[in-house]
Amino acid sequence: MNEAFSFRIFKTNGPARVGEIAMPHGVVRTPAFMPVGTQATVKGLLPEEVRATGTDIVLANTYHLMLRPGAERIAELGGLHRFMNWPHPILTDSGGFQVMSLSALRQVDDNGVTFRSHLDGAMVELTPERAVEIQTLLGADIAMQLDECVRLPASQAELERGVRLSRAWAERSKRAFELAPPGRALFGIVQGGDDIGLRTWSANALSDLGFHGLAIGGLAVGEPQNVMLRVIEAVEPLLPASLPRYLMGVGMPSDILEAVARGIDMFDCVLPTRNGRHGHAFTRFGVLNLKNARHAADPRPLDSESAYPAARDFSRAYLHHLAKANEMLAAILLSAANLAYFQELMQGIRTAIAAGRFADFRHEIREQWERSET
Amino acid sequence: MNEAFSFRIFKTNGPARVGEIAMPHGVVRTPAFMPVGTQATVKGLLPEEVRATGTDIVLANTYHLMLRPGAERIAELGGLHRFMNWPHPILTDSGGFQVMSLSALRQVDDNGVTFRSHLDGAMVELTPERAVEIQTLLGADIAMQLDECVRLPASQAELERGVRLSRAWAERSKRAFELAPPGRALFGIVQGGDDIGLRTWSANALSDLGFHGLAIGGLAVGEPQNVMLRVIEAVEPLLPASLPRYLMGVGMPSDILEAVARGIDMFDCVLPTRNGRHGHAFTRFGVLNLKNARHAADPRPLDSESAYPAARDFSRAYLHHLAKANEMLAAILLSAANLAYFQELMQGIRTAIAAGRFADFRHEIREQWERSET
Repeated sequence: MNEAFSFRIFKTNGPARVGEIAMPHGVVRTPAFMPVGTQATVKGLLPEEVRATGTDIVLANTYHLMLRPGAERIAELGGLHRFMNWPHPILTDSGGFQVMSLSALRQVDDNGVTFRSHLDGAMVELTPERAVEIQTLLGADIAMQLDECVRLPASQAELERGVRLSRAWAERSKRAFELAPPGRALFGIVQGGDDIGLRTWSANALSDLGFHGLAIGGLAVGEPQNVMLRVIEAVEPLLPASLPRYLMGVGMPSDILEAVARGIDMFDCVLPTRNGRHGHAFTRFGVLNLKNARHAADPRPLDSESAYPAARDFSRAYLHHLAKANEMLAAILLSAANLAYFQELMQGIRTAIAAGRFADFRHEIREQWERSET
Repeated sequence: MNEAFSFRIFKTNGPARVGEIAMPHGVVRTPAFMPVGTQATVKGLLPEEVRATGTDIVLANTYHLMLRPGAERIAELGGLHRFMNWPHPILTDSGGFQVMSLSALRQVDDNGVTFRSHLDGAMVELTPERAVEIQTLLGADIAMQLDECVRLPASQAELERGVRLSRAWAERSKRAFELAPPGRALFGIVQGGDDIGLRTWSANALSDLGFHGLAIGGLAVGEPQNVMLRVIEAVEPLLPASLPRYLMGVGMPSDILEAVARGIDMFDCVLPTRNGRHGHAFTRFGVLNLKNARHAADPRPLDSESAYPAARDFSRAYLHHLAKANEMLAAILLSAANLAYFQELMQGIRTAIAAGRFADFRHEIREQWERSET
């Protein structure tokens, strides 16, 4: 349990890298997709079902868990791994993004952020030190520094403040993290919105602080894909090659494919489960809306060649029926099938990089998607 | 698949019987508890999870399935077993009970019942012949005759009409069922509310019609347990001993225990899954409301000695958290744990009857429940 955190790159293929991260609760194969377990559960799935899709690591949200049931409560109960019965690696975010997106009222100053809880209206303070303390109590294998995530579009002044605060909070987070048990890791977060100058400054300012990994935050907030890719291209050469690179909150399969091609190692996103709850299936043949009447009499499964029961053993007609009838099983099966699809894509990506044929793989996958849309 | 329907009793212990029913899709151990899969899914559970709790047979609702997705649609897709990916026995009800409980507007005459669909307001006719046809299309191993289930309290005239109609519809159902594929079974339904005279007449009038089993309907509709038990005691001696006896819509574990003691072989109820969705857990130690704050810091599972992961591998504190946070996983885990508890109870009942010690078993279980409540 106290093994050192370490990242090994097996092979690169252009900027794309395949490797693995060893951490206290196990090994994470990279490029890695982390399903989101906001409230200490990947919505609708048993931990063993999440694992069975090929998931090495899940993400949990500090913001939600600090408010309910509370970090101290989870620590008393033996930590987040035991609490949610997931004995494998966990990454927690710092809460910064949810403070921006979920609290109606928030005040940011140099010390930290004060916000109104979306649950009971209480005023809560989150500082860089408290964010690290919470994540240490939760027992995360990877903790994230508190950052200020600015909503886009933003003024230059707002973007500058976000970068300046995030840099100051990075140092305080690092210092606070010295109290964490051995083996655990802390990642810094590059901010700067869509401003390449600020992104460059932020990446340079974080690279020498001794983080175990670096993330690119503040993307996947509604900007076009080409803006996101331009930021990644600008930041990537500035990040130490020996550290894992995590693109927060991304994303659609095509985003993942393009970001891996630009040197990203880790991703997280709610899409597989959220879209599953809304009746959408990600497949090799594109996205299907199972609520659409054209599936009502279709005896075919989502993918007859899938290794996963959820995608293979139930007809589209049945999934259509369940989705129309608002049955939980629709959300359960589509979440499982979607997550399995994402993890199969990651496995394909890793295999292709290892074989030195990632460019071909990316081309083939994109072609398959385009064929399906016609 | 075309094996004859047959019922064997291995042993009796007072009125209680242990045995098994062979039917086209497998064997059902009796006394049997059938979880309810109203819309072709036991809510919140994968078919394999339902099976893993020790479930031999599930019930599906004709009323819901005829309205959505439609019996002809399910038949085109290969029948209900394939549709819901449940290759084991299925019993379908006739729709009579749901017409009473779910449609705002209904008109009953000798021919059948016309009602307004709760989905789209369309007027739909259900006759004894159509109810049999629908269940044949669905492919149910056991079909039920259409009956008129009278809401209690009811006038004597209403009760009498219900009994008279149900008897007439029983004959028509039998005749219509002659078209069903070999191996399938049709059960008659004894009605008569809480009127022992009418129940006696109904039981006698059905016993010689050649049904494969007989049910007691119109109970578990809000009457006190002693009324229900009095009706069972009056009806049971009139039912041919060689036929399975099914108490429809029952019930709480204590109802099941008392009904088995009075000669009942089959049960169905939504309680394990419905109460699971509401945060309630059935355990050997009584019923727990997981939303109650007293569970918030409790590291114990529901039952550390359970053979079932849902009851054994998650703390009450975690279940409390999930239930308070309205997470689907609360409903999933509690539905699975509850169904496992019901099936463990049935296994205990069967073992006790086979060992000739059912009276002792019943006493021990009741004592355990009473101890837990203090």
